[in-house]
Amino acid sequence: MIHPTTRVLAAELPDHVGETLEISGWLHRRRELKSVTFLILRDRSGLAQIVLAEPGGDFPEETVLRVRGTVTANAQAPGGVELTSPEIEPLSSLAETPPFDLYRPTVPAVLPTILDHAPVTLRHPRLRAPHQISAASVAGFRATLDALSFTEIHTPKVVSSATESGANVFALDWFGRQAYLAQSPQFFKQAMVGVFERVYETGPVFRAEPHDTARHLAQYTSLDAEMGFIADHRDVMAVVREAVAGMVEQVASRAGEAVQLLGVKLPEVPAEIPHIHFADAMAMLGTDEPDLAPAHERYLSEWALREHGSEFLFVTGYPMTKRPFYTRPEPGRPRYSNSFDLLFRGLELVTGGQRLHRYEDYVAALDARGESTAPYESYLSAFAHGMPPHGGFALGLERWTARLTGVDNIRRTTLFPRDLHRLTP
Amino acid sequence: MIHPTTRVLAAELPDHVGETLEISGWLHRRRELKSVTFLILRDRSGLAQIVLAEPGGDFPEETVLRVRGTVTANAQAPGGVELTSPEIEPLSSLAETPPFDLYRPTVPAVLPTILDHAPVTLRHPRLRAPHQISAASVAGFRATLDALSFTEIHTPKVVSSATESGANVFALDWFGRQAYLAQSPQFFKQAMVGVFERVYETGPVFRAEPHDTARHLAQYTSLDAEMGFIADHRDVMAVVREAVAGMVEQVASRAGEAVQLLGVKLPEVPAEIPHIHFADAMAMLGTDEPDLAPAHERYLSEWALREHGSEFLFVTGYPMTKRPFYTRPEPGRPRYSNSFDLLFRGLELVTGGQRLHRYEDYVAALDARGESTAPYESYLSAFAHGMPPHGGFALGLERWTARLTGVDNIRRTTLFPRDLHRLTP
Repeated sequence: MIHPTTRVLAAELPDHVGETLEISGWLHRRRELKSVTFLILRDRSGLAQIVLAEPGGDFPEETVLRVRGTVTANAQAPGGVELTSPEIEPLSSLAETPPFDLYRPTVPAVLPTILDHAPVTLRHPRLRAPHQISAASVAGFRATLDALSFTEIHTPKVVSSATESGANVFALDWFGRQAYLAQSPQFFKQAMVGVFERVYETGPVFRAEPHDTARHLAQYTSLDAEMGFIADHRDVMAVVREAVAGMVEQVASRAGEAVQLLGVKLPEVPAEIPHIHFADAMAMLGTDEPDLAPAHERYLSEWALREHGSEFLFVTGYPMTKRPFYTRPEPGRPRYSNSFDLLFRGLELVTGGQRLHRYEDYVAALDARGESTAPYESYLSAFAHGMPPHGGFALGLERWTARLTGVDNIRRTTLFPRDLHRLTP
Repeated sequence: MIHPTTRVLAAELPDHVGETLEISGWLHRRRELKSVTFLILRDRSGLAQIVLAEPGGDFPEETVLRVRGTVTANAQAPGGVELTSPEIEPLSSLAETPPFDLYRPTVPAVLPTILDHAPVTLRHPRLRAPHQISAASVAGFRATLDALSFTEIHTPKVVSSATESGANVFALDWFGRQAYLAQSPQFFKQAMVGVFERVYETGPVFRAEPHDTARHLAQYTSLDAEMGFIADHRDVMAVVREAVAGMVEQVASRAGEAVQLLGVKLPEVPAEIPHIHFADAMAMLGTDEPDLAPAHERYLSEWALREHGSEFLFVTGYPMTKRPFYTRPEPGRPRYSNSFDLLFRGLELVTGGQRLHRYEDYVAALDARGESTAPYESYLSAFAHGMPPHGGFALGLERWTARLTGVDNIRRTTLFPRDLHRLTP
């Protein structure tokens, strides 16, 4: 029995050459040669090599071990050091064989296998990496908005009416009443502009997407922000730029190893992200459809890269028919709106814009769409009590991580995806 | 029409005496005297006084205004300055009368009125303050755990079986299948110890509490953490101490005004929080019930303050019969457990402990409780693949804020409470 002492991490070993100390982690790989056995131990900091001069250490891979040994320099070993004369103690049961070898550099498994066995398969450094990038991204989002005096809020995920889009909502039994899972914090974050002026939320949203595609999740993490006292949507776009830049910065500083492992090329965020009005984009594309098809988004992204050297492009002024009723029309051109999408590497990443802020404008907008104000009553009341011009945006965390890492399926960017078919693990 | 210029915040005015500039905000109060009218404008930074030498400015309170004027020193005005020779432009519709005067120092309304009209009533500085303290607390929690190499995770809020406690779950229609809202991220965070070693999540959890009390919410924000490679629950307690200290620190630095406004006395967090074993607590209390009644918790808190000068007290070793099946029994005294509660000012604030980490221990524990392993299969698989000794804790954000601010009802600490009766706004 080894008595507990201070554990040293694998990455710290080079600072301790000559010392006898303790490391702990998962048996990543065991390699038995003729005269020597190598154990590679994995902990949250990286890998450490352990050398056994005599036969032993025959634990199954993924068994958790505590190893006491002497840190010895060896240029061939990972990090230039290895642990010699080891005493080994298992901390877990002997591990069952994982669905595939976690020590191989590539992942020899299809997505369903990976997802079915997520608690084990996500231990593979390549499969873990997107989640480290995701965590760093959220930290960057929050740090940026904190510095801009935004207040974090937590809003209800269960709502009484399926107002925002009507379709694609999950129904719920709430103490015998019908309720719904919230599709976004839209109405709450707008109302909270009246209280805090600037708010953000990083939380789950739910879409009962009946599509089984590589791009859809039924639960995802939405990074939402809303701010008051704007001149128009361009003030919101300026904050989007800061938020995205902050996210890239934190990914670089907090998840550098994951970035390197996946060969991610982090984008440069221009001081001012180029923008094009929807009408001008249509003219350039030679089309007059009321919406951008995926091929259009790709074309525009390529154009921005070519013309402006930017992997980001704002498309502004989307037609009102394609935006929700709370969108502010463009002054002088009410067919268009004070809204925007941010394209990143060919795909829409952020949607946002200026909202209506006068009660009477909401009533008129709903009326023009032939909708009753009744289901929105509680939402609209905020606007009757004095609301400043305001706007905001939403960024889907998984979509961001997927685009950044270039994975083939958004399910690789969320730990335990929920979709049409998947409700476990 | 005033052309948009750079907006200055109310709190910044003292730095601009003699300048002509623009402020924006809500008309907090209008006071018409014989020869002069005072407008008090409220923005996110505070209040500003505007002086009208001639009649005017007769907007209803809560109307949003943009005011251009000259910053003039006046020792009697808030912050020692006021805006004179103002030009005023309303930015919102004329505001409807709020349910009560928002400018009065105290809140002349009962809780249901406050909650029914949350988008407006939360503008009252006293009602807004708990939410500023709450936001600062979460920031402190994350900053502390980030610095300790924890990784943030986002886990599913919809699960396939009502495993964790059976009762008090919300049922959901998931594409035609029965599903449930997650009562905690317990199983997910434990599994992720195998991937990241140390994880935290700050997200919503759902309890179908049929109780209509001042302490229960059906959705609340749970601050969850879990960590591997611990010796026992005391390593977790050390992290709880750091997290709580970090929360207090950030409340002091980010929400100082809210603290002052509410007269909150921030607690000192001792370098080591005192602790008492459940068995010793029972002996001291002269009882042998298997659980602590609220009166017991209050008594123990008073004892800790008297004996140790601490507003915090860990009670350790709760009987296994009172803890979930995944709890690790106390070595040598298996009637007790390696678990703890943290009491703060007479109330349980944090629950945590060491978990089982061997697959076979889980099977035995469920068996001993007469439960089948089948519904837990997906959860248990992680433990078959090598899991280190680990433990964690959960802290209810609203309960923390309520205890810190001393409010009479937990509903004052969440923006839009959800409970047995309340599903709007």
